[in-house]
Parts: sequence; structure tokens; C-alpha cells
Amino acid sequence: MVTFDDIASAAARLAGIAHRTPVVASRLLDAACGVRVLLKCENLQRMGAFKFRGAYNAISRLSDDERAAGVIAYSSGNHAQAVALVGQVLGVKAVIVMPHNAPRMKLEATAGYGAAIVLYDPATASREAIARQMAQEHGYVVIPPYDHPHIIAGQGTAALELIEDAGPLDYLFIPCGGGGLLSGSAIAAKTLAPTCRVIGVEPAAGDDATRSFKTGVLHTVHNPATIADGARTPYLGQYTFPLVRQYVDEMLTVSDGDLIRAMHFVWTRLKLVVEPTGVLGLAAVFNHRYDLHDARVGIIISGGNVDVVEAAAWFSAAAL
Amino acid sequence: MVTFDDIASAAARLAGIAHRTPVVASRLLDAACGVRVLLKCENLQRMGAFKFRGAYNAISRLSDDERAAGVIAYSSGNHAQAVALVGQVLGVKAVIVMPHNAPRMKLEATAGYGAAIVLYDPATASREAIARQMAQEHGYVVIPPYDHPHIIAGQGTAALELIEDAGPLDYLFIPCGGGGLLSGSAIAAKTLAPTCRVIGVEPAAGDDATRSFKTGVLHTVHNPATIADGARTPYLGQYTFPLVRQYVDEMLTVSDGDLIRAMHFVWTRLKLVVEPTGVLGLAAVFNHRYDLHDARVGIIISGGNVDVVEAAAWFSAAAL
Repeated sequence: MVTFDDIASAAARLAGIAHRTPVVASRLLDAACGVRVLLKCENLQRMGAFKFRGAYNAISRLSDDERAAGVIAYSSGNHAQAVALVGQVLGVKAVIVMPHNAPRMKLEATAGYGAAIVLYDPATASREAIARQMAQEHGYVVIPPYDHPHIIAGQGTAALELIEDAGPLDYLFIPCGGGGLLSGSAIAAKTLAPTCRVIGVEPAAGDDATRSFKTGVLHTVHNPATIADGARTPYLGQYTFPLVRQYVDEMLTVSDGDLIRAMHFVWTRLKLVVEPTGVLGLAAVFNHRYDLHDARVGIIISGGNVDVVEAAAWFSAAAL
Repeated sequence: MVTFDDIASAAARLAGIAHRTPVVASRLLDAACGVRVLLKCENLQRMGAFKFRGAYNAISRLSDDERAAGVIAYSSGNHAQAVALVGQVLGVKAVIVMPHNAPRMKLEATAGYGAAIVLYDPATASREAIARQMAQEHGYVVIPPYDHPHIIAGQGTAALELIEDAGPLDYLFIPCGGGGLLSGSAIAAKTLAPTCRVIGVEPAAGDDATRSFKTGVLHTVHNPATIADGARTPYLGQYTFPLVRQYVDEMLTVSDGDLIRAMHFVWTRLKLVVEPTGVLGLAAVFNHRYDLHDARVGIIISGGNVDVVEAAAWFSAAAL
């Protein structure tokens, strides 16, 4: 399925291509959280999120023929930018299917990486159907956002680097959307730091993975109302669900208010732009949603792609 | 006066106390600027700005008796937070004189570092007079914001680290307010990289240092209308003016629009929160206000303390 060797192999592919993002520590943050916190800053990754890792690992493993045909992805979020940038880096044609009402910033960033963008009307068409049809017509390889062994292995390199650079950890908090980052990182952690407790964090409104984890039955959500847009995914995948069940110790949820408070602290005190989904793990620790004492706590900040004007409005509304 | 040895000595004092802030490079930024850019990120310094360097260098050199008496500073900006934090770090009582209408965020940050805050009404009182009187009464040592050899030497360590970490530079762009960072950094650069051209950058509305530099006569401005609050200083000092004249190659100005565009790029693409004064140097390069070709360009980002909601309003108004 996916093993630590797959993650180590992905790390070798990514060396010198992806940024080895910094692990940031801060006395102020430690004081606020009450424990020693080590942040793996994937908001400082290329295209602004960990998604570059999985997309690069997957696309760089395609055959010459597949590369010549090109790749296609459907996403209005970080996966779109990841596939677009990897296409540019590897000289592979990238086609991204995006809703016509996607935020201008995301359209521009994706186009800026040289991808061909196919717009569709989400009220009348299905992006999966469009992508499948175009893949069939042109021979494009579909690059899924999370449910693929090469994607999962690529995402796991974030935790691998964190543990290599930060040393022993008692806990590792990881955002969970479709479970690619979470399952890959949990596999890496359980090999490199077997005593480290791995905790996945979801938005309360989109707690499908938490329920699936706890019951062993796949739960789904439909477009949950949360500002954590990267975690609005409807369900864990056929690969990620069993991996999360096997390697993750615990799942928990945080509120949008928790996310906004954690974001505001990171923006104003650490001077880092982070997105709501990016601080899912931190929000649990910062808002004391989990009982921790005298621990060394690793946290993956998964990304920083957010409309800064919209984020400022959240801060204002929360009177921060 | 101030020599490279003073800066090297300050660097030794600051080792392990100040952050050795990262030098950030980005393909996107290089593409936007048309040259290779290396950003020394003092927004990631303790308390969010380079000011920690000078304040620590100055206060750590006080005698035991002076330390026992305490220090006083007047500032509503980064110098206030710097003196407050250094007081906390060294166990020296710090008193900060601030206008009663200073932004809540700045009052809270300064108080959060354990300083005693003395509020005054800027309509009816002079902060200098208040500070002088309190210094006389209680024996406090006044820590000036820029015009002091120990402050200047401390600030020069930012450029020293940049050149040590980034290697040879053809140009070095530095924000200029009262000239402490600029003169200290110019001295460091002229020793470590003699062929590097050192350029100070001011807001167009507060171009006193540029005029002083060009004419050799000290010009002043009064509370200039610019969002670069750290560069609203009225004039260069008795130390900084001759040092800027001696060590700096050129001075130029940028508009507030230039600052907002540069800030927006750094926030949204580099995921770093930077303040208007902080991007003075970058704004000149990013907006092509200076002719550069095939160069390696060092830029000091001086700080990141800004009201993020206010900054978002600037971005919106500029339709960014």
C-alpha cells in the first residue's frame, strides 16, 4: 500500500526541488500554548502549501509517454496550483478544471504557473465528468488531490523533514481534509518516532473523518460550512481511510473561532501568513482543545493561500 | 565614532539572544524584480523588527548601577517594544512613554513584555520632556531610538549577517527613518563587501534624509503623510547624518502606492507579514524605481509590526 520506504523515496525525488521548509519555534507561542511547539511551515512551500510534494512525486513518476500526453486535475484550491507548478517545473502540460466563479486570486496564481484552465459552471456541470472526458479524449493522466499512493507518500515527506529537523516529538498535530497529508505523515512519524502520538484535526462542521475514524465506517459531509476550505472534502479515500485508521492515534475537531484565533496569533506575532486549513493542528493546541503537559509538540502548518482581505474581515468580526 | 569593530562586537553580544533571521529568496520574487533578490527578514526578529538589535546592544552595555536604575524610552512604535523586551530579557526595569491614543495592539505588545507604560496626551504634552523629567527624578537611562553609537552598531549587525549568509552582493537596499539601521548597515557593508552599492530608501512624503544626503545640509520634515510610520522621523541625527553621508552611496524615495504593492506581493506570495516601513527597500526594486541588471541584490526587510486589518484595507483600496 504505502510504506515508509515510499516516503523516503519521495523525499529523494523532492530533494532540491521542493523547499525544505523551516521549523519555526517561538517563546511567545510556547507561552500561549503552555508546551514547546515546533511548527513545520508548509505555508512557505512552493505555491504556498504542502500539496507541491504529492503532486511532484506523482507526476515525476509518470512514464515518458504519460508525461508527453499531459496531466489534468480538478480543484479550485491548492491542488490546482500544485499540479500547475509541477507541470511547469517538469515541462508537462497541465490542465486544471476550475469553477468559473473561483476566486480571481486562485485563477491568476494557477494560470501564472502556465496551466491551461478549463472553466465550468458548477450549477450545471460536474468537474469530475469534464476531467474524465478530457482525459479520455486527449490521453491526459488524472492527478487526484489525495487518494493515490504517490500523493500520500509525497505528503508524508513533510513529517519526515519535521522529525529529522526538530528531533524527538511527543505529539504531532496534522490538518485533515481528504487524509493525504495526515496518512502520509502518520506513516513517517510511526517509523521515525514510534512513541509520538499522531493526532488529526478537522473543522467541527466537516467532521466526516473524525466520525469515520471512530466508527470504522466511512462517513461523508457535503460542502460543510467552515472557513477551512481545504478541509471541505466530502470523505476519506479508499487509500487514506484504512491508513488513517491504522496509523493515526486520535482525531479531533476545532471550531472556526478556534481557527481564527490561531491564525491571528500567527499573523500578528509570528509574522507568517497562514490559511484556515493550515492552522487546524495549531488551533487544537493554541485553544487548549487537548490536554498536554511538558511536551514537545510538532505541528504541521499545511498552507498559506488565503485571501488576506477576507482573513482581515474574520479578525475584525472576531474583535481580534 | 562607529566602526566595523563596534558592529562585530555588537554581533558577539547578540549571538544566541537575537534571532539570526533567515535570508529568503524566491523564484517568483526574482521574476517580478528582474534580478536576484535576497531578503534579510527582520520582520522575523524578536518583537518583530530589527530594533531589538540596537536596544539590546545599548542596554547590555550599561553599568550595573545604570541597569539597577532602569531605562526609559519614548516611542509608539517598534523602539518601544524593543526596549520593553530587552528590559525583560536583561531583568532591567523599562519605562515607555507612549501617546494615550497609540494603537491598542502596540500598547498591548509593549505591556506584554513587562514594561511600565506612561501615557501622555500628545495635544498638550511633550514626550521628550516627560521622559527627561522622569529620567532625572528616578535616574533612568534614556535609550534613544536611533541616534546613539551603540544603537547604530547593533542595527549594523543585520547587514553583517545578511552578507555573511548571502555571499557577495552588488547592491544593498535599506529602509531609512532616523538612519540608525541605514548607517550601521552601510558601515558593515563597506567593510565586508566594499564593491556593494548601498542605497537608502525613504517614503516620498518624508524625504528629509534624501534631501539632507544630497545637499549636505540637514533637512527636516514634520509628521509626513505616509503609511511608513517607522520613517516619519523628522531628521537624521548628529551621529547618523555624517555616517549616512560617508558610507551610503545613494538615497531615493518611493510612494505609498509602491509600498502597498510590494507589501501585497510579500504577504500573498511569500506568506510573510511585513510592515510599510519594512518594505521601503524592496519597494524600490519591486516597482523598478532603480535601474538594475543581472545583479545580486540584498534587501533588508526591517519589520512586520502592522495592523493587519488596516493593511488589508490598503490592499482593497488599491484594488490588489
